[in-house]
Amino acid sequence: MTNSYDSGRLNLPFVGISTFGKYEYVADWNAIDADVAVLGAPFDFGTQWRPGARFGPRAIREASTLFSFGHAGAYDHEDDVTYLGPGTKIIDMGDADIVHTQTEASHANIEKGVRAALEAGAIPVTLGGDHSINIPCVRAFADRGPIHIVQIDAHLDFVDERHGVRYGHGNPMRRAAEQDHVTGLSQFGIRNVSSTAKEGYDDARRFGSDIQSVRQIRALGAEAAAARVPEGVNLYITIDIDGFDPSIAPGTGTPSHGGFLYYEVMEFLAILARRNCIVGVDLVEVAPDYDRDGTTAILAAQVLLNLIGRILHARKA
Amino acid sequence: MTNSYDSGRLNLPFVGISTFGKYEYVADWNAIDADVAVLGAPFDFGTQWRPGARFGPRAIREASTLFSFGHAGAYDHEDDVTYLGPGTKIIDMGDADIVHTQTEASHANIEKGVRAALEAGAIPVTLGGDHSINIPCVRAFADRGPIHIVQIDAHLDFVDERHGVRYGHGNPMRRAAEQDHVTGLSQFGIRNVSSTAKEGYDDARRFGSDIQSVRQIRALGAEAAAARVPEGVNLYITIDIDGFDPSIAPGTGTPSHGGFLYYEVMEFLAILARRNCIVGVDLVEVAPDYDRDGTTAILAAQVLLNLIGRILHARKA
Amino acid sequence: MTNSYDSGRLNLPFVGISTFGKYEYVADWNAIDADVAVLGAPFDFGTQWRPGARFGPRAIREASTLFSFGHAGAYDHEDDVTYLGPGTKIIDMGDADIVHTQTEASHANIEKGVRAALEAGAIPVTLGGDHSINIPCVRAFADRGPIHIVQIDAHLDFVDERHGVRYGHGNPMRRAAEQDHVTGLSQFGIRNVSSTAKEGYDDARRFGSDIQSVRQIRALGAEAAAARVPEGVNLYITIDIDGFDPSIAPGTGTPSHGGFLYYEVMEFLAILARRNCIVGVDLVEVAPDYDRDGTTAILAAQVLLNLIGRILHARKA
Amino acid sequence: MTNSYDSGRLNLPFVGISTFGKYEYVADWNAIDADVAVLGAPFDFGTQWRPGARFGPRAIREASTLFSFGHAGAYDHEDDVTYLGPGTKIIDMGDADIVHTQTEASHANIEKGVRAALEAGAIPVTLGGDHSINIPCVRAFADRGPIHIVQIDAHLDFVDERHGVRYGHGNPMRRAAEQDHVTGLSQFGIRNVSSTAKEGYDDARRFGSDIQSVRQIRALGAEAAAARVPEGVNLYITIDIDGFDPSIAPGTGTPSHGGFLYYEVMEFLAILARRNCIVGVDLVEVAPDYDRDGTTAILAAQVLLNLIGRILHARKA
Amino acid sequence: MTNSYDSGRLNLPFVGISTFGKYEYVADWNAIDADVAVLGAPFDFGTQWRPGARFGPRAIREASTLFSFGHAGAYDHEDDVTYLGPGTKIIDMGDADIVHTQTEASHANIEKGVRAALEAGAIPVTLGGDHSINIPCVRAFADRGPIHIVQIDAHLDFVDERHGVRYGHGNPMRRAAEQDHVTGLSQFGIRNVSSTAKEGYDDARRFGSDIQSVRQIRALGAEAAAARVPEGVNLYITIDIDGFDPSIAPGTGTPSHGGFLYYEVMEFLAILARRNCIVGVDLVEVAPDYDRDGTTAILAAQVLLNLIGRILHARKA
Amino acid sequence: MTNSYDSGRLNLPFVGISTFGKYEYVADWNAIDADVAVLGAPFDFGTQWRPGARFGPRAIREASTLFSFGHAGAYDHEDDVTYLGPGTKIIDMGDADIVHTQTEASHANIEKGVRAALEAGAIPVTLGGDHSINIPCVRAFADRGPIHIVQIDAHLDFVDERHGVRYGHGNPMRRAAEQDHVTGLSQFGIRNVSSTAKEGYDDARRFGSDIQSVRQIRALGAEAAAARVPEGVNLYITIDIDGFDPSIAPGTGTPSHGGFLYYEVMEFLAILARRNCIVGVDLVEVAPDYDRDGTTAILAAQVLLNLIGRILHARKA
Repeated sequence: MTNSYDSGRLNLPFVGISTFGKYEYVADWNAIDADVAVLGAPFDFGTQWRPGARFGPRAIREASTLFSFGHAGAYDHEDDVTYLGPGTKIIDMGDADIVHTQTEASHANIEKGVRAALEAGAIPVTLGGDHSINIPCVRAFADRGPIHIVQIDAHLDFVDERHGVRYGHGNPMRRAAEQDHVTGLSQFGIRNVSSTAKEGYDDARRFGSDIQSVRQIRALGAEAAAARVPEGVNLYITIDIDGFDPSIAPGTGTPSHGGFLYYEVMEFLAILARRNCIVGVDLVEVAPDYDRDGTTAILAAQVLLNLIGRILHARKA
Repeated sequence: MTNSYDSGRLNLPFVGISTFGKYEYVADWNAIDADVAVLGAPFDFGTQWRPGARFGPRAIREASTLFSFGHAGAYDHEDDVTYLGPGTKIIDMGDADIVHTQTEASHANIEKGVRAALEAGAIPVTLGGDHSINIPCVRAFADRGPIHIVQIDAHLDFVDERHGVRYGHGNPMRRAAEQDHVTGLSQFGIRNVSSTAKEGYDDARRFGSDIQSVRQIRALGAEAAAARVPEGVNLYITIDIDGFDPSIAPGTGTPSHGGFLYYEVMEFLAILARRNCIVGVDLVEVAPDYDRDGTTAILAAQVLLNLIGRILHARKA
Repeated sequence: MTNSYDSGRLNLPFVGISTFGKYEYVADWNAIDADVAVLGAPFDFGTQWRPGARFGPRAIREASTLFSFGHAGAYDHEDDVTYLGPGTKIIDMGDADIVHTQTEASHANIEKGVRAALEAGAIPVTLGGDHSINIPCVRAFADRGPIHIVQIDAHLDFVDERHGVRYGHGNPMRRAAEQDHVTGLSQFGIRNVSSTAKEGYDDARRFGSDIQSVRQIRALGAEAAAARVPEGVNLYITIDIDGFDPSIAPGTGTPSHGGFLYYEVMEFLAILARRNCIVGVDLVEVAPDYDRDGTTAILAAQVLLNLIGRILHARKA
Repeated sequence: MTNSYDSGRLNLPFVGISTFGKYEYVADWNAIDADVAVLGAPFDFGTQWRPGARFGPRAIREASTLFSFGHAGAYDHEDDVTYLGPGTKIIDMGDADIVHTQTEASHANIEKGVRAALEAGAIPVTLGGDHSINIPCVRAFADRGPIHIVQIDAHLDFVDERHGVRYGHGNPMRRAAEQDHVTGLSQFGIRNVSSTAKEGYDDARRFGSDIQSVRQIRALGAEAAAARVPEGVNLYITIDIDGFDPSIAPGTGTPSHGGFLYYEVMEFLAILARRNCIVGVDLVEVAPDYDRDGTTAILAAQVLLNLIGRILHARKA
Repeated sequence: MTNSYDSGRLNLPFVGISTFGKYEYVADWNAIDADVAVLGAPFDFGTQWRPGARFGPRAIREASTLFSFGHAGAYDHEDDVTYLGPGTKIIDMGDADIVHTQTEASHANIEKGVRAALEAGAIPVTLGGDHSINIPCVRAFADRGPIHIVQIDAHLDFVDERHGVRYGHGNPMRRAAEQDHVTGLSQFGIRNVSSTAKEGYDDARRFGSDIQSVRQIRALGAEAAAARVPEGVNLYITIDIDGFDPSIAPGTGTPSHGGFLYYEVMEFLAILARRNCIVGVDLVEVAPDYDRDGTTAILAAQVLLNLIGRILHARKA
Repeated sequence: MTNSYDSGRLNLPFVGISTFGKYEYVADWNAIDADVAVLGAPFDFGTQWRPGARFGPRAIREASTLFSFGHAGAYDHEDDVTYLGPGTKIIDMGDADIVHTQTEASHANIEKGVRAALEAGAIPVTLGGDHSINIPCVRAFADRGPIHIVQIDAHLDFVDERHGVRYGHGNPMRRAAEQDHVTGLSQFGIRNVSSTAKEGYDDARRFGSDIQSVRQIRALGAEAAAARVPEGVNLYITIDIDGFDPSIAPGTGTPSHGGFLYYEVMEFLAILARRNCIVGVDLVEVAPDYDRDGTTAILAAQVLLNLIGRILHARKA
């Protein structure tokens, strides 16, 4: 017979071990041979309201199995392209080791994982955890810059220090801006009250951040929004799931109404994937305990698989 | 006194047995005397990820009681019309008998129910159950064609066969296309990865399907979208609840972000109800275990009651 | 050091007693000294489907703590304004006493609370409870009229009487219209079937109500919608959370698909806050048992804090 | 072939309209012809903490379908008896009409339903609703006494009056004790703090109530506990689901730890069913919104079906 | 330093890929080298009420990670024994391939997995899925008998055939009894109404089954209960999670009140592990969608890890 | 009239701000004048599996409102005593300030709160948070020893150090044992695998801990168990809610089956309250996100209010 499922397994989404996209789990970080390496960073001591992002990597992995049916890649009838087809080399590195009560030790382990992916020549895609895990992710690029950071988020995350806290989930963009290898920030989706006070905004503007609200990005459209991101520079994409609207991303620590819808982000990222070289990605703040129907984890998996597919497609072309 | 509730019951939504819309339950399928006959098809062995559509009919029935307040029909102030007013003849047939582990036997029982409605001259409205229940629903029209099928769905459902499976929830549109009495397919809302691989799309296009994504339909608007559906032909409407966006329809087996919003579908269906003769309807894939707040079942009930109201209004006119 | 958190508490959102916005609780209603006084009205015997709005005040209070981080007010980068900054005088009055099985006694206690706020010169902001609690709220303004009522709601709530019920959640706008000090009603968001039958609509139109659906308001835009509300008159705002779409407000008794999105309401209210004198607010029908992910309570808190901030900002200006 | 399912339906538990035990729904209360008539009393304005008992009847009905498999009754291998076998005449009367905001009108409708069952010679089994619905249930026996009431409950429910409330869920046993046709009360399971203060206990003891805690009943055992109930008198059984332990009955308004386990109650009731004539039953305070896994409703259904089976078995014998 | 965690990972329970007990995943079934091989059998088309046991293997695997802290095995202070210490060879085989709508094909794949474990000399421990998956598990022992089956269950599962169904979750013990290599059945925990009618009990008794209710086993105690199981014969243990009480195992398709508590089963199994050779185990009917707090999956993982530890401890001794 | 509710508020459980037991909130820790001072310690960075104990204090406070009906204290009919009657002086101190990512700073703030209570002469009752919050609680007694610690827990929590962690939730009893003012430990309920390996047990035994499992305590009974606790010494009680069985305490980070039932603990604590001087209490590890039906928080509130009542009753006597 002729169909491609005659041999092998049907491999329905609900069957099998939950690695990311059901891709191979490579426990030995010295043995990575892949285009994309997915790392879990289940750290959430940096959260300021609802906890639980530590279970984000597991939830995203399980949700990603929904999109693993079909053996021959993901055919997109609108683009008439099959993404993630045969030959795609994605692996799951498992999780960075987390040490409870110890922020620095945990972050160091995350940095180690991202560096391992980079050393293997793979694009690191890190699954948070809270947004503080972006700090070690960006640090891992220290000798691989310059990079420009594109942030999708409800919150500016540009707090310098409060009560001694410099590595919580309100600080990552400030910590990034301090790094020499980070040349700029596009901070899109920022809206409503958050832990960043007026001084933080002033500081971010001084640094040169391009701060845009959801309504501002929406008024621009995906093309014009993408045009605000510099061309010809390597991009690191950091997606706080709360950049999306609570209607599709309720499962997060600090939801903020008035957020992005699915295609608003997806079309913007697709343009960047075609135009820039995306060298790293993280997606953070999925908190499955507040995601009773599972749609947030599905959103995270759907965004990541589509983004990875488009990055790899652009690379091949 | 003068108000219509002085006698009889107040009959609040939370009071009473949960039949569809609190309409009469007619257990004897030889005794149906109605314009519309609602049949439950609680079959879900055809699902490929999250199960539970077997409880869809019960959930939709219970949700439908929310819309049963008011004894004098449903007044729509935008249309200035009272739908489902006195004289409306809708009945609830109960459920088709389902045989666990047995797909064919279960499907045969569903077909029997739809045929009973048709023989009584009632429009069958079938509550799934997974989308495979559309297979017996369409088969029941075998000697009552031709019909054109309008599908609202995230997924193409045009898989021919895999590992011997031909009657799962990824197959119904292929099975429909094979029937002589089915003259065409309008497949709207199709997006993102699904169980249908590229060959399925090629086959569907060959068959003549009109495949449109949510973004394509949205760009067209309801009128132009409806204009793509042939006039002068009897329509069978099959609504997979996952055609809607997960923000309003989380409670389904395989949610897909980027779906239709309420009025996008409702306005489209209202046009069809005015313009074409709608001879059958099914609404499938409501899975209440993933619908913790109940909005998916409410959506299903709200869509069906509004659609039925508009069909009957058009018939009278 | 220079940051404003060096002394005092960090006071993260998850820390501390849940009063509204973590503002001071003033148990003695004779000792209110505030610009805004928040009162809980945990009454829900007026509901006709899903109960639980009695826990609305607690849920909104807890959700409001999310927005209490930052000691220096809420900086809005789109407006370049810090709302709710130092000097803001908001207090939480706690709840009106509710007497189970007794609608009139409970309503009387709510009225007493609103009157206490008014006598202290504070703007009363009442947290429902079901929409029937609007009846005593409006009555409390009897000697402080005239007021025009702006209602955000899915349902008209203009039922006169049924089976002897005149003080349920389907009656408040009818009761308001009967009051001498109420000069008009703007009823926005009204859609779909509800407990108000056609006679109710006819009566409301006769009274002079401006009844607009979500689609009609959406077509107008926020500015034109606000322009329909009379200028130069004191406004009382009553927000039924089900005026919003179920995608962002699932946690309510009688959800109705096709509702308002966040900015549609927020921009409209912001215009009114700048243009009219808003003398009272209630937000009703948050039912946390149907709000498993907490987004409805967050929406209520976010809307109220933003609205209060804008009212107080306008007053100062 | 020989098996009894060859003809007719398999009728799995998840299939079909949710009447109690899938027994026939008899909407016309003048046409009842049954040994047992089940009535829903979805009233919950009498609750003092968590609401939602209004959905108790629907939840119990749906749970009862789990126990409707098998066409030939329920074989109990420990008793070697088939209960509820062919010939059993049970019907579902649907619900009493409830009028929101109106306690007395609602109670009157419940009383009407119970009287209809009694007039038809059927044993009324009423599904609450909160415990206040016991008040009209007991009143319906006014001309059919004397009856002795056996109460399974965590709370004494013997409050006379507070703030004018006499018909809430803290009052039913007091209201019962005031009735001439009620000759005594066995109040078993009473424990921990509740709305009944010391005066209530003093009054109950003065009335002659036999008040026993869970530990006291447990120390006695089922036989000795049953022996405390007078022989030779007609019994009315009122089961507040919170008499059971929260481990098996979390889904109730006011759970109280340290309650009865399943067999402790079941064995006690089985003895009474054999020894006394049980003339009426109610089971109250199932609140499905707090019964996320459904075990409380299943407990209610399991207790009622077993109790009814044993009552009918004793009658036949 | 001296502690065993100085090198390597802390490996907290929430960190890492969810294989069973975080043991190695061996995808190649020809490469199994282990004492125990864990196989997922995510099949649930055999259920007659609540579905979802297909996600049982994933839920049990995730719950099992809770028990993987500590690198040096599980020290039991009551036994003063370290179970599952260094040298333990357990692997996770992943899942058998399931074919939706196809019961026989799915069962065949499960049988293949169990046979692979047996051929490798490992004890197969199969995670259901519904109880029908026991049918292929037992079949896999066809040439490795004789075995005696010990069943922990609420239901007898001894239905022969109904409406053509012979391989649903009500049939496995009947199917087992028909096999030549099955010499007897100990059916413990059986209670209440179920799908097995009186004929089924008669047939089981004729076959020689030892049918004991929870109360009967409880009256005996663990030692005497174990003494009813024949000595000197290889045992296959099948644990339907609904044999346990719904208070600790709500997350299952057909809960039945009055079930076993944790130590009642654990002590009984510990005796068997010491006394008999246990050659295979399955644990079925964990349905995580009804296990909102996760205790059922934790129970399953806790029982299995303790049982495996005791089996391996006995083997070594 | 004569009843005590004629004046003042009815104050139903669902009404009012959620302080502990609805007792007064005293924000100024220098102004405490009370017998018992309740402090929230919403710290959970010390957890090793499921997070969320940071919301424990809020959940326990809200649950405690259930037990605040009745103005005249809590009458216990088994003891014939009114506990917590008029004259009871309990206050709620609010929460210790928590600094995310900073364990030491957060613990220091908790210690400060407990010391404030002690300096005011009040018994500190601390609501966790995870069990690591016991570390600062015990430290606060440094100059007020000697104390003997009675621990109710599933886990020994006697880990010295791992990966640098000394202040996580697996360490508190080890940290306590190191303090000079701690003279002994009664560790009851310990069972099953946990983060404490064999060395930890050896160390604890060397220290002189009395380690007893649930089964061992159950075999002893409450009196004999209490007799194992030294007389004539001040007791500090630390209750990890996971000492209780998951059937009544699912809402915790690391549930362990086979735990204590309600009365087993309550009777034991009641004896201690009568016999010893209890100088401090903490109750930890209530994680409301895993307590969907709310029974865990209710258990915590019920245990604490009963324990406080008994301590105060013993003091008065």
